[in-house]
Amino acid sequence: MNAVKSYAAKSADKPLEPYQLDRREPGADDVEIKILYCGVCHSDIHTARNEWAGTMYPVVPGHEIVGKVTRVGDKVSRFKVGDTVGVGCFVDSCGHCRNCAQDNEQYCENGHSQTYNSLLQDKKTITYGGYSSHIVVTQKFVLSVSDKLPLEKVAPLLCAGITTYSPLKHWNVQKGDTLAVVGLGGLGHMAVKLAASMGAEVTVLSRSKSKEKDAAELGAHHFELTTDPENMKRLRNTFDYIIDTVSAEHDYNEYLSLLRTNGVMILLGVPPKPSDVAAFHLIGGRRSLVGSLVGGIKETQEMLDYCAQHNITSDVEMINMDQINEAYERTLAGDVHYRFVIDMASLN
Amino acid sequence: MNAVKSYAAKSADKPLEPYQLDRREPGADDVEIKILYCGVCHSDIHTARNEWAGTMYPVVPGHEIVGKVTRVGDKVSRFKVGDTVGVGCFVDSCGHCRNCAQDNEQYCENGHSQTYNSLLQDKKTITYGGYSSHIVVTQKFVLSVSDKLPLEKVAPLLCAGITTYSPLKHWNVQKGDTLAVVGLGGLGHMAVKLAASMGAEVTVLSRSKSKEKDAAELGAHHFELTTDPENMKRLRNTFDYIIDTVSAEHDYNEYLSLLRTNGVMILLGVPPKPSDVAAFHLIGGRRSLVGSLVGGIKETQEMLDYCAQHNITSDVEMINMDQINEAYERTLAGDVHYRFVIDMASLN
Repeated sequence: MNAVKSYAAKSADKPLEPYQLDRREPGADDVEIKILYCGVCHSDIHTARNEWAGTMYPVVPGHEIVGKVTRVGDKVSRFKVGDTVGVGCFVDSCGHCRNCAQDNEQYCENGHSQTYNSLLQDKKTITYGGYSSHIVVTQKFVLSVSDKLPLEKVAPLLCAGITTYSPLKHWNVQKGDTLAVVGLGGLGHMAVKLAASMGAEVTVLSRSKSKEKDAAELGAHHFELTTDPENMKRLRNTFDYIIDTVSAEHDYNEYLSLLRTNGVMILLGVPPKPSDVAAFHLIGGRRSLVGSLVGGIKETQEMLDYCAQHNITSDVEMINMDQINEAYERTLAGDVHYRFVIDMASLN
Repeated sequence: MNAVKSYAAKSADKPLEPYQLDRREPGADDVEIKILYCGVCHSDIHTARNEWAGTMYPVVPGHEIVGKVTRVGDKVSRFKVGDTVGVGCFVDSCGHCRNCAQDNEQYCENGHSQTYNSLLQDKKTITYGGYSSHIVVTQKFVLSVSDKLPLEKVAPLLCAGITTYSPLKHWNVQKGDTLAVVGLGGLGHMAVKLAASMGAEVTVLSRSKSKEKDAAELGAHHFELTTDPENMKRLRNTFDYIIDTVSAEHDYNEYLSLLRTNGVMILLGVPPKPSDVAAFHLIGGRRSLVGSLVGGIKETQEMLDYCAQHNITSDVEMINMDQINEAYERTLAGDVHYRFVIDMASLN
């Protein structure tokens, strides 16, 4: 075992604090990574504060990880020391169920191993995430990262990037499609960039006029206020797709009616309570309300390669590790453009 | 104008009664049809009783029509006197919108003309349905009906048949797919027959053990009680598709969790109130909640040809026209296997 520095929450109501973590010695299939940058995802906060229940304390959050390979096991063929690599939301899965066999480890029927607050496939060993100096991950769940892009801006692609890229590809968003994004945060800003890069005509739907400039800067073609009923009426039957990234309670029906015939509304956020859905909104236009969870490992690599090719990264604000608790508060207040990323050099 | 016999509701709270209706003289593109049989759809009752609001009295319901051509206009090339034909839920549409151009008249962006209680494309002339001796319909909305099958059993295909056939084709249900049907009425019994004919492994989900024998007779491979929580738990992640034909209030979430990854739940019924949907059920398995409305004219012809080829018809109970009010009560009580069809000869 190797003792490494990290930051952990020791209970739901305490701030994160320095924590010494034991990482396993790299096994034959393992890659040991020195973490350079780790993004701060809203899930980190939910878990640190036990808002989804089931948090195993102490918890070390972080699943938007970019770093350099420091050691590899004997059977590791895809990586060598010094390579730039990434780790996202998952560090293992059963590998043989129907979904794993189709490269959809995010839907592993036997339970995948998430990067933190989860169990490895031995169903015993607890996982600890990227708010730490090093991580050891089986090679299949390690991604290659191009050195072409600024690495701190690549880190959020490992969760926010793949979570938006995967549904855009799965539902085949393409040139000329009209697509609206609801919620302009970590996920939403990536949805705007990625959908625009695929040729979609992108509209940001927002309750706040203050987001209009931001939307344009991210590459959105249009901005529409959802607080004006006349505006919402005018927008009926407008969009082929709506990407809904909002995790707060909200009404799906008002968005469903904005979809064209055969339109698809893609949910990426999990509000605390169910939302009403009127069947008529779906039936009247053969519309679909769907959900999507992160993405598989093969698709995550495809997304990283796509982003390198198209020069797409996340807009980030860098913080030091000891600013994490303040960053959580600012994330909750929506006061971040658009993702905090921890400079892991600050851990020392 | 031609005076024809019919049955109409004159207000929401009165039984249907004999009514003399004026039908237009067939124009150049029109087909005049002597109606042999007309199915009794739940929509007829909703409309007669103004339960969806907007009923224009007197209303002559009926949109599951089979009959014989009695006259044709000068420009009618597809039909001749004596042909067996059908008319479904629509008698016209704009013909040039995005959806009409793709043979999806059911989603006409400028408002289709429904067979009854609707306006023709002049947006003035009220339509009257199949509870009458004759109907005059523009040729594009007239379907060819094979004489191979018993015509009274074909009538319900014009609504219940196409409403279930269209989503099965649109979402590409095929051999080996697991498919559940919720609600074993007019729509549900056709969904079982059609899905089984396409090679799907069909399960009927019901709250009543009494439906088990019926389900098997219709061709379902399995029957499962939804009232037993242990049973519902066992059925999680089982179905590629769920066809939900229920119009009463019910919980979508308990069915969504029965879908496999990428599974699709297709709503065909419109409950009076919205239903709760928990985003997690969609996100956790990339599931879809969708709706579908009847089907286009081209697809309705395809369905009729398919049913003739595969020997598929509706299970019906024949009634005379003067039994319609009693039939409404029995339909509301679920006391029909599975569709009432009016023998229009009884109108005389």
